[in-house]
Amino acid sequence: MTGDEALTIGVDLGGTKVEAGLVDRRGKVLGGGRRPTGPERGPDGILADLVACLAEDCLASAERPVLGVGVGVAGQVDPETGTVLRAPNLEWSDFPLKAQLEEAIDLPVFVINDVQAATYGEWTCGAGRGAQDLVCLFVGTGIGGGVVSHGSLIRGCGGTAGELGHTTLDWHGPKCTCGNRGCLEAFAAGWAIARRAQDAVAEEPDEGRTLIALAGGASDNLTAEVVAQAARDGDPLAGRLMRETGEALGVGVASIANAFNPCKVILGGGVIEGMPELVGMAEAEARRRALEAALRSLEVVRAGLGRHAGTVGAAMWARRNLATAGSGAE
Amino acid sequence: MTGDEALTIGVDLGGTKVEAGLVDRRGKVLGGGRRPTGPERGPDGILADLVACLAEDCLASAERPVLGVGVGVAGQVDPETGTVLRAPNLEWSDFPLKAQLEEAIDLPVFVINDVQAATYGEWTCGAGRGAQDLVCLFVGTGIGGGVVSHGSLIRGCGGTAGELGHTTLDWHGPKCTCGNRGCLEAFAAGWAIARRAQDAVAEEPDEGRTLIALAGGASDNLTAEVVAQAARDGDPLAGRLMRETGEALGVGVASIANAFNPCKVILGGGVIEGMPELVGMAEAEARRRALEAALRSLEVVRAGLGRHAGTVGAAMWARRNLATAGSGAE
Repeated sequence: MTGDEALTIGVDLGGTKVEAGLVDRRGKVLGGGRRPTGPERGPDGILADLVACLAEDCLASAERPVLGVGVGVAGQVDPETGTVLRAPNLEWSDFPLKAQLEEAIDLPVFVINDVQAATYGEWTCGAGRGAQDLVCLFVGTGIGGGVVSHGSLIRGCGGTAGELGHTTLDWHGPKCTCGNRGCLEAFAAGWAIARRAQDAVAEEPDEGRTLIALAGGASDNLTAEVVAQAARDGDPLAGRLMRETGEALGVGVASIANAFNPCKVILGGGVIEGMPELVGMAEAEARRRALEAALRSLEVVRAGLGRHAGTVGAAMWARRNLATAGSGAE
Repeated sequence: MTGDEALTIGVDLGGTKVEAGLVDRRGKVLGGGRRPTGPERGPDGILADLVACLAEDCLASAERPVLGVGVGVAGQVDPETGTVLRAPNLEWSDFPLKAQLEEAIDLPVFVINDVQAATYGEWTCGAGRGAQDLVCLFVGTGIGGGVVSHGSLIRGCGGTAGELGHTTLDWHGPKCTCGNRGCLEAFAAGWAIARRAQDAVAEEPDEGRTLIALAGGASDNLTAEVVAQAARDGDPLAGRLMRETGEALGVGVASIANAFNPCKVILGGGVIEGMPELVGMAEAEARRRALEAALRSLEVVRAGLGRHAGTVGAAMWARRNLATAGSGAE
């Protein structure tokens, strides 16, 4: 059996769950599992969850050799040493993940930021295949981004490049979770859509009847998912909230297009999966706003890997690093 | 005489003037000249101006061998072929600059965008020396930008990456020259400072007396230079206009820091030279707004090469390309 047929494992590690997948060289997920993580159990508790997920959900059922593991972590990492510098949701700080995990599972481990992993996945196996310059925006509870420039994932000085959710749209706008005002995230992330919906039904209860009913009568329960469902059902207020979200995304995409001049902007994440119309709306608004030269070669497209982008990307990242190290994986 | 002592020529070619400098391997300017250009004379007229500037102002007086020429052009270029794709201020479109200039002067020619040339200059010989990740913002009549990521100048899909003057600060804000609303340029470029000053004196003529007097009695003559001079003289309205400009720059720098995570943001150009206090003001505002992780390794500094950034950068760009081509220049 050659390296061509061997697998790598990709892990998406967040504050509430760990998900791992056995991935082949083309990015196909052949198995894996998903478990809750409990940061309250401390750094070693999460490591134990991760090891159990790898051993029981992946390695035990792998029908082909496994070459290594890529772990995408929701936090700031040092990819050279594989140390997690800061991961607030995991309560990890300067945690030597690569060293500890390699000792536990006896396979080479590569650590990367989770959004950069998802970007790498979309680039190598998803909607970005073949592009040398692309930007991914993952719109979920928050908004994360990743950038490929001239065929490389850009990292920046401290490894945190791509925080595109915190691109300002309105410097006097609503407070963002980051402390700044008027970030893209403060208009278009899941939490911001929910807040805008709650504000809208408070202002216009008549117009908001459908939304409130869908939220079980309590406007506090209004979420981006409820807005998406109501918009699909034709509710005018939900439709307006969606259009405003698309407009805000388009303003952000225009700044991004001007700054990075990508060939593709790829929109993914739970909010986009729930309201795929946002892709077209964002593109139309960006085309009204960005420079002609930046638009000439730009496509705005929906992500191709859905919720698997993170695991596939981490697995492909491990495969690339193994190949670079001359292990014969490729 | 070895390649170490040889020179390259750097050219900064814009719609109103061509400037060329004889530059040594350390980026020191040893001579050169500056001439007006007249786009009204057509593409060949500008080429003739450029050739005359190179021949008479540089080559005739060069006391050491000249290895080649780098030309920074205010427009969109294809650096592989050396063709100027679009340069509206020069009225050039698909103009084969490298081919024509090489024929005229019998030296190797390398063509690059003018702002990218200036960024390359600041990176190799100015305030950015040694940084692997930096962003330059040149604030003059307009605002241009350039980005170095992981030790490479980023270009993007069509060569126009770094249009950071058209980063949105307020999506419902004032009209920008690009057609969008609320761009950084529409608050902080020379033309925007002039417009804000004109609006301010129209609204509050009493407060504006000093500014109007400095502009020779006509508020239409108010420029960013006049505002800078009045601010230096302690005029309160000019001081407020400067602080607002610094604040706007800081909002832009915050988005840029989050997106690119540079080690350095370098501020240069005529507006910064006229009001160097803007650097500290922009940094303070950016530190209030950007993500902590993006700020951890960030310095905001003033450009080091002043008005020579473009010529030095183009000359160093030529030197690098000659070295890459194995000419023994380095």
